[in-house]
Amino acid sequence: MSTAWTSRYAQRLKGVHSSAIRELLKITQKPEIISFAGGLPAPDVFPVERFREACRNVLDKNAKAALQYGATEGYEPLREMIARHTSSYGVKAKPEHVLITSGSQQALDLIGKLLINPGDRVLVEAPTYLGALQAFNVYGAEYLCVPSDNDGLRTDLLEDPLRSGPKFMYVLPNFQNPGGTTLAEGRRHELVLLAERYGIPIIEDDPYGQLRYEGEHLPPLVVLDRENLRRDRGYSLGNVIYLSTFSKTLSPGLRMGWIVAPPEVITKLVHLKQGADLHTSTFGQMVAYEVAKDGFLNEHIKVIRRVYGERRDVMLQALEEYFPPEVSWTRPLGGLFLWVTLPEGMDSHRLFEAALKENVAFVPGDSFYSGNGFASEGLRHFRLNFSNAQPDQIREGVRRLSVAIKNQMAGLNPQPVAG
Amino acid sequence: MSTAWTSRYAQRLKGVHSSAIRELLKITQKPEIISFAGGLPAPDVFPVERFREACRNVLDKNAKAALQYGATEGYEPLREMIARHTSSYGVKAKPEHVLITSGSQQALDLIGKLLINPGDRVLVEAPTYLGALQAFNVYGAEYLCVPSDNDGLRTDLLEDPLRSGPKFMYVLPNFQNPGGTTLAEGRRHELVLLAERYGIPIIEDDPYGQLRYEGEHLPPLVVLDRENLRRDRGYSLGNVIYLSTFSKTLSPGLRMGWIVAPPEVITKLVHLKQGADLHTSTFGQMVAYEVAKDGFLNEHIKVIRRVYGERRDVMLQALEEYFPPEVSWTRPLGGLFLWVTLPEGMDSHRLFEAALKENVAFVPGDSFYSGNGFASEGLRHFRLNFSNAQPDQIREGVRRLSVAIKNQMAGLNPQPVAG
Repeated sequence: MSTAWTSRYAQRLKGVHSSAIRELLKITQKPEIISFAGGLPAPDVFPVERFREACRNVLDKNAKAALQYGATEGYEPLREMIARHTSSYGVKAKPEHVLITSGSQQALDLIGKLLINPGDRVLVEAPTYLGALQAFNVYGAEYLCVPSDNDGLRTDLLEDPLRSGPKFMYVLPNFQNPGGTTLAEGRRHELVLLAERYGIPIIEDDPYGQLRYEGEHLPPLVVLDRENLRRDRGYSLGNVIYLSTFSKTLSPGLRMGWIVAPPEVITKLVHLKQGADLHTSTFGQMVAYEVAKDGFLNEHIKVIRRVYGERRDVMLQALEEYFPPEVSWTRPLGGLFLWVTLPEGMDSHRLFEAALKENVAFVPGDSFYSGNGFASEGLRHFRLNFSNAQPDQIREGVRRLSVAIKNQMAGLNPQPVAG
Repeated sequence: MSTAWTSRYAQRLKGVHSSAIRELLKITQKPEIISFAGGLPAPDVFPVERFREACRNVLDKNAKAALQYGATEGYEPLREMIARHTSSYGVKAKPEHVLITSGSQQALDLIGKLLINPGDRVLVEAPTYLGALQAFNVYGAEYLCVPSDNDGLRTDLLEDPLRSGPKFMYVLPNFQNPGGTTLAEGRRHELVLLAERYGIPIIEDDPYGQLRYEGEHLPPLVVLDRENLRRDRGYSLGNVIYLSTFSKTLSPGLRMGWIVAPPEVITKLVHLKQGADLHTSTFGQMVAYEVAKDGFLNEHIKVIRRVYGERRDVMLQALEEYFPPEVSWTRPLGGLFLWVTLPEGMDSHRLFEAALKENVAFVPGDSFYSGNGFASEGLRHFRLNFSNAQPDQIREGVRRLSVAIKNQMAGLNPQPVAG
């Protein structure tokens, strides 16, 4: 009978496979392994006591609403809070610009559903967030890949791909996953102007924006876009859809994200979300609101910045100390990840196998490329997460990793044997 | 700028509109209105104290896991519990047959994604659950509609549509939404045999199965299918995907449903769910598990049966008392809804307008038809929910509704005027 099901799967399932990361994470869950593979927040900074209090409050004061069906758009006080929060960046967001989603991943899925016809091209950074590729692939997306450097997306290489008419651009300007790079301010202005000139919308994914460990906050694209529009021809609804989440600040287990977009786009996304899951957990939304309210979110983010900032420093120092000079890496100003480049001829998949024998794990770089033309480039890179492991574990993990790297390099350049 | 977005929407958005119910529910939220429109459980039976205790337990014993990312398949103890629970129906389900979803609505969306190519036909009951139509429409489904009577789907009318090769059948055998009818046992056997003969899978949606107020539990299709398969040619994976949910037993606000399917189908659905929302809230799953465990779910269902059973009786009695003899309705053995048939020439949309003036609401029947050929049939029906209003409100609401009906009937058959 099993073939009967296979023969009934929709066309769109061709090319839908489990992500490499997902399979890797299974291997890397053994307790003896130090894993830099996942994108997991540190559980020791979860505000557990605040969650306890929030659950009590919601169930004492508002249980009947919390356990009942709710509006697809989301819990109104939470939408208002997010609108205020977003407005503090300089966007005049109102609750009707906000849709609460079941994590940012659902935002990506709904955007794929809203915008992608099979064969449509999406302009992405190379490398980019693999969850976005997963979400868009199922709708038949193809990709235009534009390389990044230390200042983020190479806006100087954008005009040709924009001229070829992608459906939209998908970018992560802050502490990009997996690159760890931040889009420079000048490039942000260029990107928004180019988007405007070619009439190509931007999906701005910003899960890590508040987790900056040094330097000044840079304006989001959604702000630059609207300033632009106001100056040139009066206030308009804008060309940018902005995504963010509580996953990296409060708790990923809650699955609580949001979309900020023009109201007519929100209306369409609401219809799609209605068919997808009716609404995000009412109870979860009320708890998230109770946790975040009265300035707690901003205070808690300071704690996270301190903890993750220290872990980033420990990882950067350990890399300096242990890694051979032929290997290079990015120096992220925030976020959860950094990106390592191996010398020519090395293969991050073979390195992964060797690293596992040393009980340390990471994600090989090819997962973060959409496939066309960058597959071999991917093998020269890997992603390291620095938020989840304790500082001493980070040092030890980098040391183990350096052993695996040196062994593989020795294999590439065999030393002359005295004979 | 707003037209710029409209022009970018994917083809699949054609025909995606907000459901009529959704718009109606907005109107019917005024406090003076007695609403039989929604499908809302009664908030007075939510087990609030048990939720309070569950949240405390989860956060005291397991906070770091509860607030962290989890496996896409779902929280293992919850999958095990659902496998045991499903096995008590006679299906030998194991955890690997279970995928936890963000409500049953997400199950419908994932099944649409898994199985429907644009233009594929889905065989549905007429009328059927409109949320399923919404979920399938976005993937380009077309429909083969088979009428129901008091014994549920007319299996005697199935062979022709099955011969024309639908992708799958979607059926609600227990206390159907909106019909309130239950598929008779003989027809269950016929349906499963026909599905087998024509090689057409069945999606069995069973949100209300445990809410039976009289008569004996009937075997689910998934059980009959597997018994069949075992008898004829050894144990096999089966032809039926079974869906259920905690929405009608514990809380709809949690958005917690599940799919029971052959492991290879679960594997594919897991890949799709990964791209759709990574996983359902870990915290929500753990809380649901804590609430349901140690037999609480079954005990709580007895309370719900008593409360809803009484409300059904009150509504049936009030209909008998107040409604004119030309109007008929179904007598559900369980669930949340009954289905009213108006005399020829009446229009449930016009009646809805009139009913609102009397401060009572329902859902006009046309929302529950997929469109082809049944639009006028839909106008002769409407759906009444009996779970959400208190008994005295139910009586008063039915009385008000009878006023609106009698007024409209008087308009259809004007009395001779003495002259």
